[in-house]
Amino acid sequence: MPEAEPFHIGLLGHGTVGAAFAALVDERADEVARITGRRPLISGVLTRSRGDAAGIIAGADVVVELMGGVDTAREHVLTALRAGTPVVTANKQLVSRHGPELWEAAAQGGTELRFEAAVAGVVPVIRVLGESLAGAHVDRIHGIVNGTTNYILSQMAATGASYADALREAQALGYAEADPTDDVTGADAAAKMAILARLAFGRWVHLDDVVYEGIEHVTADDIAYARELGLSLKLVGTAERVADGISVRVHPVFLYAEHPLAAIDGPYNAVTIESPAITEITLSGPGAGGPQTASAVLGDVVGVMRGTRPLPAADGPAKLVHDVRSSFYLHLEVDDRPGVLAQVAERLGLQGISVKSVVQRGLGETARLVIVSHPAPESRFLAAVRLLEALDFLRAAPRAIRVIDETFDVA
Amino acid sequence: MPEAEPFHIGLLGHGTVGAAFAALVDERADEVARITGRRPLISGVLTRSRGDAAGIIAGADVVVELMGGVDTAREHVLTALRAGTPVVTANKQLVSRHGPELWEAAAQGGTELRFEAAVAGVVPVIRVLGESLAGAHVDRIHGIVNGTTNYILSQMAATGASYADALREAQALGYAEADPTDDVTGADAAAKMAILARLAFGRWVHLDDVVYEGIEHVTADDIAYARELGLSLKLVGTAERVADGISVRVHPVFLYAEHPLAAIDGPYNAVTIESPAITEITLSGPGAGGPQTASAVLGDVVGVMRGTRPLPAADGPAKLVHDVRSSFYLHLEVDDRPGVLAQVAERLGLQGISVKSVVQRGLGETARLVIVSHPAPESRFLAAVRLLEALDFLRAAPRAIRVIDETFDVA
Repeated sequence: MPEAEPFHIGLLGHGTVGAAFAALVDERADEVARITGRRPLISGVLTRSRGDAAGIIAGADVVVELMGGVDTAREHVLTALRAGTPVVTANKQLVSRHGPELWEAAAQGGTELRFEAAVAGVVPVIRVLGESLAGAHVDRIHGIVNGTTNYILSQMAATGASYADALREAQALGYAEADPTDDVTGADAAAKMAILARLAFGRWVHLDDVVYEGIEHVTADDIAYARELGLSLKLVGTAERVADGISVRVHPVFLYAEHPLAAIDGPYNAVTIESPAITEITLSGPGAGGPQTASAVLGDVVGVMRGTRPLPAADGPAKLVHDVRSSFYLHLEVDDRPGVLAQVAERLGLQGISVKSVVQRGLGETARLVIVSHPAPESRFLAAVRLLEALDFLRAAPRAIRVIDETFDVA
Repeated sequence: MPEAEPFHIGLLGHGTVGAAFAALVDERADEVARITGRRPLISGVLTRSRGDAAGIIAGADVVVELMGGVDTAREHVLTALRAGTPVVTANKQLVSRHGPELWEAAAQGGTELRFEAAVAGVVPVIRVLGESLAGAHVDRIHGIVNGTTNYILSQMAATGASYADALREAQALGYAEADPTDDVTGADAAAKMAILARLAFGRWVHLDDVVYEGIEHVTADDIAYARELGLSLKLVGTAERVADGISVRVHPVFLYAEHPLAAIDGPYNAVTIESPAITEITLSGPGAGGPQTASAVLGDVVGVMRGTRPLPAADGPAKLVHDVRSSFYLHLEVDDRPGVLAQVAERLGLQGISVKSVVQRGLGETARLVIVSHPAPESRFLAAVRLLEALDFLRAAPRAIRVIDETFDVA
């Protein structure tokens, strides 16, 4: 076969992922040429210290943005898109903060922005949502989209370690960064869920509109008690259609063993997509590492080489709903005396919270009361918890954690 | 927005899947128009009793083949492809028997054949292999690609039922057909693995070249004994690169609990794809049902509407290897007397089989000997089993079942 014409890649960023991507392009160039008819060639590299961004972008058939950060990356990506050059990025902060501006620039330039690597590493959830399920009506996505927190929670469950100890271990193994804030607070997962919501529901959700809660306050006791009920604790992002709009949120939640995400342990990512036509599918794999991210980026580059596909306009349901219905696990430490359960049940009843299961266990002078509720508006449940906090027989602050107890319960 | 121009779908076949597809197109036409700019419209339907195939094909922008069977379907698909009309099919028999002819016709017509629904129902393994991983080097695929057999094996494991009883139950629930031959012999899974091998390795594998074995001879005892070793039994298809070529095969195998396929129970499908760049990803979801298959077909139709992408030529590794290396579980019922284990170990050693674990349990006059071997060429292992069959202390025929004991052990 004649020498394939080169396809020029302008690479912005040459850190861990950038270097892994450059190596992968070299390694796979023949195969990509076989598939696409053109040979990928890195025609310019912008590092922190050298390279002419304007020249690299101008000479590229595709720009690959792996520099991280938001401001400079945004400028370069906008420049490329407006000039009609497709862009592939792994930058979830960029996409979740400036998505609409980027997609408008792509539309203006008649080109596209791909970002598979920004969510769930090599797990191809972006492509599956945007292509395989392009014709499906997606009702709900649940995702474990942060490998760091999943590793920490898995270790706490497996060894009984405290949050602080499990975090230190994750840092020692390179699964958590020295400053783990972005991961452990749920902010990273929130950015990814915002991106998934855009694809699933055709509705832009700004990162600031995603309600999120991290794992910093989870205790080994929470996990141990819940295990008695057959539940496992994960940091789960949810994007779903609700009665009058959509909701996007991230919380520590308890899952029943039957849920496809319950078995995902360690530094892994997994996403469950629910739709009436398909019931549900689950995609899982390692969270982002250099080679995994590089592979996802190369998949997007190959996609671009085979023809660009603009993202459909955002005209999905407009309203973001914050007060969704959830089931809760509620853990109370109370004086072990008659009438306590009745008073707790009454407070819950006042807010319309109905109880699914109760386990009470005496611990000498105190008792542990574990309640799982039926779904109810979160505002009502949290109001009930405030009522409970005023009760004089309470020995410790109530612990409330959401429970996902519907598998395949598609609205 | 102005009325979108129609995109004409010629529908061949109007059974369960055909009717579900037609209903889904009606339901999702607006959304598809939003995404693609054209409105899908079923412009002709060929049923068993009515319809003019030539006219339907000639008037179509895409032909959707859901008639099943091979000969007539093949004719119609070839006619469409040669005329440059893209075709979407769910027909695994057609693709696995006549793939090269169909792809040649597509190349000749400058169009493409899509067949996501032919493998693993709504689990988007075809698209992930063909697009997300187009630039990756895939080493191995393990798949549970037949929901009927997975349901039967799950029931046997959960209830201790015999194969015959579990099959009857599957038939009563509609998970197995009245004539279950194609499923329970592994033939259906073999056809699907042949298709996956084509995509993963760029090498056409005819169905006749896939070695397969079904689940008809699996006993409840096999499952119960293996559980003591922490193993679960699944019908797994494997397509992998080996030292001097590729191997495609389907067997009942034991999986360790850590393997991503071990937890897939019930009428589900799941596929694990291993590659150095990604470690491994797993895709899972319900096996084919009418709505699931229809959804996968519509995903392909939307793909076609967004631009056709011919399949790259088949020029992967040429050699099909049949004598691969496997680990085995070996179950022997023997007289309980001294020297038995030594004689068994000697026969295995003669064929170069090394033992990973042995459990011996006395049962009165007899003993049960369960051995798990390290990987060795299958021909050597089977030769060792023949040697064992000649031993006079054997009380029943040896039971040998393959074990997948490498997770993430990418060659």
